[in-house]
Amino acid sequence: MSRFLSRRFADLEAYVPGEQPQDMQYVKLNTNESPFPPAPAVREAVNALEIDRLNLYPDPEGRALREALAGHYGVGMENVFLANGSDELLNYFFMAFCDGERGVAYPAVSYGFYPVYASLYRLPAQEIPLREGFRLEPGDYCGIGKNVVIANPNAPTGQTISVEEIEGIVKSNPDYVVMIDEAYIDFGGESCLPLVGKYENLLVCQTFSKFRSLAGGRLGFAIGSPALIGDLDMMKYSTNSYNINRLTMAAAIATIENDEYYVNNSKRIQENRAYTVSELDKLGFETLPSKANFIFTRCRAVDGGTLYRALKARGVLVRHWDKPEIIDWCRVTIGSREQMDIFLEKVREILREVG
Amino acid sequence: MSRFLSRRFADLEAYVPGEQPQDMQYVKLNTNESPFPPAPAVREAVNALEIDRLNLYPDPEGRALREALAGHYGVGMENVFLANGSDELLNYFFMAFCDGERGVAYPAVSYGFYPVYASLYRLPAQEIPLREGFRLEPGDYCGIGKNVVIANPNAPTGQTISVEEIEGIVKSNPDYVVMIDEAYIDFGGESCLPLVGKYENLLVCQTFSKFRSLAGGRLGFAIGSPALIGDLDMMKYSTNSYNINRLTMAAAIATIENDEYYVNNSKRIQENRAYTVSELDKLGFETLPSKANFIFTRCRAVDGGTLYRALKARGVLVRHWDKPEIIDWCRVTIGSREQMDIFLEKVREILREVG
Repeated sequence: MSRFLSRRFADLEAYVPGEQPQDMQYVKLNTNESPFPPAPAVREAVNALEIDRLNLYPDPEGRALREALAGHYGVGMENVFLANGSDELLNYFFMAFCDGERGVAYPAVSYGFYPVYASLYRLPAQEIPLREGFRLEPGDYCGIGKNVVIANPNAPTGQTISVEEIEGIVKSNPDYVVMIDEAYIDFGGESCLPLVGKYENLLVCQTFSKFRSLAGGRLGFAIGSPALIGDLDMMKYSTNSYNINRLTMAAAIATIENDEYYVNNSKRIQENRAYTVSELDKLGFETLPSKANFIFTRCRAVDGGTLYRALKARGVLVRHWDKPEIIDWCRVTIGSREQMDIFLEKVREILREVG
Repeated sequence: MSRFLSRRFADLEAYVPGEQPQDMQYVKLNTNESPFPPAPAVREAVNALEIDRLNLYPDPEGRALREALAGHYGVGMENVFLANGSDELLNYFFMAFCDGERGVAYPAVSYGFYPVYASLYRLPAQEIPLREGFRLEPGDYCGIGKNVVIANPNAPTGQTISVEEIEGIVKSNPDYVVMIDEAYIDFGGESCLPLVGKYENLLVCQTFSKFRSLAGGRLGFAIGSPALIGDLDMMKYSTNSYNINRLTMAAAIATIENDEYYVNNSKRIQENRAYTVSELDKLGFETLPSKANFIFTRCRAVDGGTLYRALKARGVLVRHWDKPEIIDWCRVTIGSREQMDIFLEKVREILREVG
C-alpha cells in the first residue's frame, strides 16, 4: 500500500485467487475449472472474420448474446445483464445495493470474495454461521432486513438449499435484494431462475467459467427484474461500458447453442464425483454431499494443510484454507476420470506414508 | 433507478458511449477506432490451441503479457498493470487515490468519463477550464494539491502538451498522483513514459483500442512506479481478479511483437489526417491542430448538431456533444482514405444544400 492510496482502504485485504501456475505441470483440481475444452462450435465461432473485426468496439449492450441467453432461459432481454466474469457482477451487486444503511448478510463459510467486497465498500456485513455439518439454515435469512447473498450450491461445501427455501428468503425481504450465486448450479442442483418473474428483488448470478468450460473467456451474467438489471447497467456505464470483448461474446453464443455437449460433460463430472466420493469413503474420508463440480472432504489421518502440501509435492493441486472452521478440510475439483485416478493414487500414497 | 439502489447514486449520470450500431451500415467515424484490422500475426495467435484451453482460467497476474509490455517500453514487470480496457484502469485510479480529502482535477473539456467517475465516488472534483482555443495551460495544474488526470493528446480536441510541461505538473504535486491518459499518443504525440523512472507519483495510461486495432479485445494498461502499480493491483484483487481473458492476452502479445505493422498504419492515419484537414480548410472549416486519430472541427455555415445529423442521415457517423462550450464542433475519427473521401463528399453535399 503506497502513501497515495486513499485511507479508506487501510484495512482492506484483497482476495487471493487459487494458485494458477503457468507451467501447466500440475493436475489442477484447485479452481473448479471444467476438465473439458469448449464445444467444437466455439472454435468455429472464434474465426478469422471475428478476429479481423477486433479493431471495432464490441456492442456495449451485448444484444446478440443477451438475446441468446434470454431465449435459452425463457426470459426477456431486459432481464439479462452481462459481466466480465461473475466476480465483476458480484462487485456491482455490493456497489449498487449495499451501503451504510443497507447492509448485507452472507454465510460465514462461503465464497471468499464476499467479505472482500464488504470490506472494500465498508459495509455493515453480517456473516451468518453455518449450522452443524456446514448446513445453511434458510430461516437465518428470513426477514433479516438486509441485502442477502448466498451461493447455491455453497462454496466450498457443495451443499444446496431448495428453491422453496430460497423463495422463503426472497419473499420475507421484499425491500432488499437477494442475490443467489448459482456458479455451480449445473452439476445436479435446481436453479431458482423460475422465481425471477415473481419477485422484483431476486437476482440470480451464473457464470460461463464452470459448466460452460469458458473460465479463460471471462463471462458471468445475472438474470433478474428489469429494475435490478437497470441498476446494474448504471454501475457498468459508470465504470466500464465496454466490459465484454468481441471474441468472448462470439464464443458464448456458440456455447449456448451447443447446450447438449455441456450437459453431457456435466453428467460425466457427476459420475466422476460419485466415484471419487466412494473411493474416498473406502479410505476413511468424510465428504459432504455435493451438487457442485467439487467436493469438500477431510481425513482423520491427515489434516487439511498436510494433505494439501503432500498432494502439491506430488503434482496435484487442491484448495485449502487456513481458516479455523475449515482448517481440517480440502476442496477438490472434480475433473476427468484420469485426473481423479491420479488424485486418488496420490492420496493412497500419502496415507500409506503417514499410516 | 430502482428503489433498491443505494441513495448515494441518486444524482449519478452514467457515461454515454458513442453510438455502436450493430448493423454495420455506417461509415463509422465516431468512436476513434482504427480502420485497420489487427496484424495477421494476431490471427495466428488466437488459434485452436488457445481456444481449446478456454476451460482454464487466465493467469491473473498476466505475466507473459506484462513481460512483453515491459520489454517493449524498457521498464520492469513491476511497473506494468493490465486492465479490461483503459476505462477500467481509470476507474481504479479514481477509486484508489481519490476521496473526500484527496480530490481530483481535470480539464473541463476532456474525456467524458472523468466526471462520471468523480460523481460515482462523490469526489470533490475541480474541472479546470481550457484557455482560448481550447488550450490546456499546464500552469493551472502545478502545485494544485490534488490528484490530476489529463488526457494527452486531449479528447475531443486532439491538442497536446509537452513532456516538459507534464514534468512540471508531476514535480509540483509530489504528494498526489498525476495520471496522464495517453490513449491517443501514438499518432504523432510524444509519450511521457521516460519520466516514469524519475517520479513515484506518475501513472501513464495507454490502450490497445486505438493505435493497436484491438478495441474489440478490451485491453488497457498503466505504467508507473511499483508503489502505484501495487495499489492498482489491490483494487483489482478486491473487485475482479481475473480481469483479462486468455484470447486478448494472446492477441496482445502478438500485437506487441508486430509493432512495425501498427507504426505503418499510424503513418497512413496521420497522412489521412493532414489530407482531411486540408480539404476541410478549403471548405471553410476551422480545425484544431491534432496529434490524435481524430480531429475537432467546426464550420461557420452549419452548426455542429446540424452537421452531425445531416452526416448521419447520409450514412456517416461522427461525434457531437450538446455541451455549451463545444456545441459548434464535431469530432471526426480519421479512418482510411476511402472513409475520409466519403465523409468529405457528404460534407460538400451538405454545404451545397445549406449554401
